[in-house]
Amino acid sequence: MLNKTCYEFIDALASKAPIPGGGGASALAVSIGVALGCMVGNLTIGKKKYADVEEDILELLRKSKALIDRTNKLVQDDAEAFEPLSKAYSLPSETEQQRINKEKTLQKALIRATIVPLEIAECCLEGLKLIEQYAKKGSSLVISDAGVGAVLCKSALQGAKLSVLINLKLMKDETLKKELQSRIAAIEAEGLILADKIYQDVEERICS
Amino acid sequence: MLNKTCYEFIDALASKAPIPGGGGASALAVSIGVALGCMVGNLTIGKKKYADVEEDILELLRKSKALIDRTNKLVQDDAEAFEPLSKAYSLPSETEQQRINKEKTLQKALIRATIVPLEIAECCLEGLKLIEQYAKKGSSLVISDAGVGAVLCKSALQGAKLSVLINLKLMKDETLKKELQSRIAAIEAEGLILADKIYQDVEERICS
Repeated sequence: MLNKTCYEFIDALASKAPIPGGGGASALAVSIGVALGCMVGNLTIGKKKYADVEEDILELLRKSKALIDRTNKLVQDDAEAFEPLSKAYSLPSETEQQRINKEKTLQKALIRATIVPLEIAECCLEGLKLIEQYAKKGSSLVISDAGVGAVLCKSALQGAKLSVLINLKLMKDETLKKELQSRIAAIEAEGLILADKIYQDVEERICS
Repeated sequence: MLNKTCYEFIDALASKAPIPGGGGASALAVSIGVALGCMVGNLTIGKKKYADVEEDILELLRKSKALIDRTNKLVQDDAEAFEPLSKAYSLPSETEQQRINKEKTLQKALIRATIVPLEIAECCLEGLKLIEQYAKKGSSLVISDAGVGAVLCKSALQGAKLSVLINLKLMKDETLKKELQSRIAAIEAEGLILADKIYQDVEERICS
C-alpha cells in the first residue's frame, strides 16, 4: 500500500474504494509523526552541544525505526481486516440459516477490524512517548518538528479511536466489547494528556 | 516531493535533511484529511438515500480536489522556502558589512518561510469547512472517516502554527510580525473550535 507514491495514496484514499480509509490514514499519520521525531534525533546526534544525550538519542532512533516499520505494516493490516468485513456485509440473509451464518461471519470479521485500529492507537501512544524524549533532549533548532510529530500522533490516536468505536457498535460479545472499550479509553486518556503536554512544552520553548 | 513513494517520503522526513520537515508533513496531513472527506463524498453519491444532497456533494468534491492540489503544492513550496533560509543562516558574519547583508537576507527569507506555513494553516481551515459538510451530508456508513479527516486537519493546523511561530521569533519587522501573529491566531481559534465540533458530532453519531 505504501509502495504507492504519495499522490497515488492520496488519490486512493479519496476514491470510492473503502480501503485505504480512516484506519490506514491514521497509521500513516503515526509513521509521519514518528519520522519527524527521528529527524529531530538525526539533527541532534554528532553535535558537541548534545554529546551527553547522544546515546539516548541513538536508542530512541532504534525504537522509532521499529515503530515506523510496525505502523507502516498496520496500513496494510487495516486494509486486509476490512476485506472479510466487507464480504460479511454482502452475504445473503434470506433464510434463517443464512442469517445465522452471516451474523457469525460478521462478528468474527468485526473482531479483527477492531483489533487493528486498537493496535494503531497503541502505536500512537508509543510514538508520543518517543516524541516526548525527542522534544526534551533534541536540538532546540528543530524543536517545532517534534511538536508537529506530537499533534500528528494525537490525531492518529483520535482517528483510530473512531474506527474502533464504529466496529464495536455492531459487536455482540459484550465481554469482549467492554474489554476493548476500556482498552481504547485507557490509551486515549494517557495519549491525549501526553500529546497536549508535549505540544504545550514545545510552544513554550519556541516562544520563550 | 510527493512523487516519492510513501515509504520514501517517510524516510526523507526521518533523515537529517531538514526538508521535508514539519511544514511539509503538515501540508501532507491536510491532503490526507481532505482526501478522506472525498472518500465519504464518493461513497455517498449515486445512492438513492442521499439523492437530495448529490449536487452539494459533487460541489464539495470539486472544491476538495482544488484544495488537495493546493496543499500538495505547499509540500514543495515549504521545502523551497526553507532553502534560502538555510543559505542565509550559513552566510559569513565576520565584517560589519557581512553582518548587515546576512541579517537582510535572513529577514527576507524568513518572510517566505512564515507565509508558506501560514498558507498551510489557511488550507487546514478550508479543509475543515469542507469536512464539516461531508460529515453532515455524507453516508452514515463512513462517517468515522470524516471524523478522521477532521482530526488530521486539526493537527496539521497546530503543526503549521509551530512552523509560523518558530520563524516569527526571529522576524524584526514588528508591524509584519504582529499582522502574521494575529492571522495565525485567528485561523487557529476558528479551526480548533470547528475541528472539535466535527469530531464530537461524528463520535455522537457513531455512538448513538
